[in-house]
Amino acid sequence: MENFIFNIPTRAYFGKGQIENLASGVKEFGGSRVLLTYGGGSIKSNGIYQAVIDQLNGAGIFYIELSGIKPNPPIEDVYEGVRLMKENNLDFIVAVGGGSALDAAKAIAAGAKYDGDVFDLISGKVAVNDATPLATVLTMAGTGSELDMGGVITVGENHKKYAIIHPLLNPKFSILDPEYTFTVNEHHSMAGCSDILSHLMEQYLRPDIGCDVPDRMNEGIMKVVLDNAPKIKENPNDYIARANIMWASSMALAGFQFMMGKKFGAFPVHAMGHELSSLNDMTHGVTLALITPSWMRYTLKNAPEFTPMFARFARNIFEILETDDVKAANEGIEKLEHFYEIIGMPKNMREAGVSEDELKYLADKATEFGDIGTMTPITKTEALEIYTMAW
Amino acid sequence: MENFIFNIPTRAYFGKGQIENLASGVKEFGGSRVLLTYGGGSIKSNGIYQAVIDQLNGAGIFYIELSGIKPNPPIEDVYEGVRLMKENNLDFIVAVGGGSALDAAKAIAAGAKYDGDVFDLISGKVAVNDATPLATVLTMAGTGSELDMGGVITVGENHKKYAIIHPLLNPKFSILDPEYTFTVNEHHSMAGCSDILSHLMEQYLRPDIGCDVPDRMNEGIMKVVLDNAPKIKENPNDYIARANIMWASSMALAGFQFMMGKKFGAFPVHAMGHELSSLNDMTHGVTLALITPSWMRYTLKNAPEFTPMFARFARNIFEILETDDVKAANEGIEKLEHFYEIIGMPKNMREAGVSEDELKYLADKATEFGDIGTMTPITKTEALEIYTMAW
Repeated sequence: MENFIFNIPTRAYFGKGQIENLASGVKEFGGSRVLLTYGGGSIKSNGIYQAVIDQLNGAGIFYIELSGIKPNPPIEDVYEGVRLMKENNLDFIVAVGGGSALDAAKAIAAGAKYDGDVFDLISGKVAVNDATPLATVLTMAGTGSELDMGGVITVGENHKKYAIIHPLLNPKFSILDPEYTFTVNEHHSMAGCSDILSHLMEQYLRPDIGCDVPDRMNEGIMKVVLDNAPKIKENPNDYIARANIMWASSMALAGFQFMMGKKFGAFPVHAMGHELSSLNDMTHGVTLALITPSWMRYTLKNAPEFTPMFARFARNIFEILETDDVKAANEGIEKLEHFYEIIGMPKNMREAGVSEDELKYLADKATEFGDIGTMTPITKTEALEIYTMAW
Repeated sequence: MENFIFNIPTRAYFGKGQIENLASGVKEFGGSRVLLTYGGGSIKSNGIYQAVIDQLNGAGIFYIELSGIKPNPPIEDVYEGVRLMKENNLDFIVAVGGGSALDAAKAIAAGAKYDGDVFDLISGKVAVNDATPLATVLTMAGTGSELDMGGVITVGENHKKYAIIHPLLNPKFSILDPEYTFTVNEHHSMAGCSDILSHLMEQYLRPDIGCDVPDRMNEGIMKVVLDNAPKIKENPNDYIARANIMWASSMALAGFQFMMGKKFGAFPVHAMGHELSSLNDMTHGVTLALITPSWMRYTLKNAPEFTPMFARFARNIFEILETDDVKAANEGIEKLEHFYEIIGMPKNMREAGVSEDELKYLADKATEFGDIGTMTPITKTEALEIYTMAW
């Protein structure tokens, strides 16, 4: 068990009508000139945009809008935000949306306080050491960006994804109204659930022992996802199910809380999934569903010493009674695949439209900065094997 | 599901040797003149006291000591602390100890910033609206005071317990080194485990539905307590078990996190337990073990509509497979009693030395401010029935 620092600096206002805390929150944290960022136009048709500007206008808070933040947000959107911040002396950011709008806002927050090119911060060449305070209004559950310290930005022709991570990027507060997610379509709702589950599995399935608190809490949240995702599929306006998924999403990554005592480090499935969505503009959560079972089978085969961890996952999450660890572990993977099927994830990369000749490229890119493995090394060769299994 | 605000303003430094962050933390939060509070002399014999003053001396931080904070801390200790704060212009508190030293420090923190009698704040007559920043060095796991916003103070001849609760009383930071709990004796270690379990059960067994996230996380932490308490009994120097219990304690009450979406309100078992320890100076965790099973049986009998909740508790915590809810619920209570037996809690109030003629007095006192029930009303009559069942 590793030493750790636990710190969740973000305050969450959770529930119906919590938007009423937006303006007072902005003022509490010193905001008077706001950059309001959001993605496509959906927030204009579902009333969320109106509720946000009613808050800002009602409190006489000046704001400038940056709309059209793209999914898998590209660095160009970040540059535009940083320019607006600097040219207009803005002192606060309100990001409305899902992971993309929030992640872009975090990079903008860091860039606004940096004299050089914000890519220095995104690439990790220069450490973040200041950031504009930001708040978020969440409209889609999955990434956990609303309560965590990280954001993922896409850079360059190859759509390389970089994670910018720093405690200064934790939102000051986030508004989580489950009703705001009622209009998210089934595909994106279910992909969000896949993303949450992956965050949990990537923290749970690691070579650390004795970390009962994070592991047991993690198991609990995994069950919440398994129980509630199908209810949303059945009825997208199920408030309780939407609320449980929204809060599961936040809890799954808040301050990376399930790493408490576990080693920080790679999220191999995310690393491989990012390349897949970079290349094919595939929804992030879908890529994770495609990769996870193959990563599990690969690890089981090549690192048999960790079989008990996969067996524990199978037993504690899917209530598998099988006493043989290898059999239990494999049954667990099958149950997970069954869950992915229930929530409408594609069966394999082939079915998802990836062509076989892309696999080598994907393996190259996923490992270009080195080993991304946790229980086994994952360099180019291993990544190719996993991608091929998932194809 | 209720709306809620999630906010855990305390930073935790967890692990071996984390005391090294004490002085820098005090300075970060503006401390330059410190009140150092602690209980009996145990921290002088086990080296913790020396480590603390080495930190303060090493950083040139001025401090005044208030030692001898008593268990179930009396308001007189708080008065003394407030006097020292005011007379010496102190601007920070470092509390070293278990729940008593920490709870007293919270009341002192509020009293130091209040012109009137601190009892006004403790009794709730006047709301807390300012407090000296404080930090804690935990030496005993159980109360959760290190990451929460509350403290319990004993007042007057009748040893009445009052809870002072306000977000300003959250420690700025807490140092949690599991090794610091190695020397806690078996009785107090196990009573601490009983306290943690009770915090969890009092948040779990409530008439709220659909709150999957807090309930599932709560189930996870309950299992951590059941799994690790016996390991500490077996080997008090088991670092992993001590660490799991210490962190379970913090997580069980941090920002009352398991209330997320559940209704705030009474903790009936705590209310009844407090009277028991007031009257007999009995260890807090022991009183909870004495009351809980009777409270459960009373509730099962008188509020059958909540039977499914007790059955869920039995099935999810003790893996009881019984399909009949009433039978499952009762089996769960028996399993809980078995756990209490394993960790050495007395079987009933009689065995714990309470005389039968005290029961009426206890019931009176526990309900003197009104109904303390959650699933059923608990006024004097019901409290007497529960105490009698527990006797």
